[in-house]
Amino acid sequence: MDYEFLIEDLDLNKSQKAIGTDKGLAKIGDAIVNLSYSVAKSNFLTKNNPNKKPIRTGKKVGRTILEAALKKANLKNFAKNRANAHDLADTVEALVAYVWLANNITLNEIIDLITENLAGNLYNRQEEIKNATNAFTELLNNIKKFLPDK
Amino acid sequence: MDYEFLIEDLDLNKSQKAIGTDKGLAKIGDAIVNLSYSVAKSNFLTKNNPNKKPIRTGKKVGRTILEAALKKANLKNFAKNRANAHDLADTVEALVAYVWLANNITLNEIIDLITENLAGNLYNRQEEIKNATNAFTELLNNIKKFLPDK
Repeated sequence: MDYEFLIEDLDLNKSQKAIGTDKGLAKIGDAIVNLSYSVAKSNFLTKNNPNKKPIRTGKKVGRTILEAALKKANLKNFAKNRANAHDLADTVEALVAYVWLANNITLNEIIDLITENLAGNLYNRQEEIKNATNAFTELLNNIKKFLPDK
Repeated sequence: MDYEFLIEDLDLNKSQKAIGTDKGLAKIGDAIVNLSYSVAKSNFLTKNNPNKKPIRTGKKVGRTILEAALKKANLKNFAKNRANAHDLADTVEALVAYVWLANNITLNEIIDLITENLAGNLYNRQEEIKNATNAFTELLNNIKKFLPDK
């Protein structure tokens, strides 16, 4: 099944703010972001594990990471005016859900993009934040072309 | 990319308990379950919305639902001995992640299976718990064939 009917209203009237401030989209996007990052982090840790033994992990992506990625990708226009960190993170999640529901990117493509852009020692919290921010910035840079320009 | 290398160790030595009690798998599965249910619930509510306007929502699936589904699908053997509700819910999540990583089921198939098996008034909390339990029981009944028999 195809889920594009879930964004029919947003497609009729494509607006940056309508997409970027949709609370339902942000909830679906939250789950996409957490799943993608969990698998990407597991991929990265496994590939860099000297003995190649699988390392499976799950990780909720914090708002600091998503907020910073939105700013670095210059997509703050999609957020509401006077948005706080929480609002900005929600906007990232809404944008990811929008392009996924529109069939412009698959879950595997999202996971692979994040995996390829991870680096460093993810066991160090500060390094993980920095590298995860870069990876989500790259993801946003890649999906920009599927988003309305005003 | 294919992520089957993330379960290589479990595939070498297929055991119900090794799969069903793996904490990393449960974390990945938690994200799969939440994403699948969020999209399935959105699908269901939209299809049953008299004016057909999209309803987007996100929902974390509670342990009560997953625990009950594991028991109804007769898969308690995969959980650890003297498992509590939390352990049983983790086992459901681990099983879902295992079959997804093994490419035995796609995310869309999981979402569609849950969507098709939802019913009733999901705005009523008790009815939602009952119907979501049925939907996850059906999902488990469908993936059973991909799991080891001891």
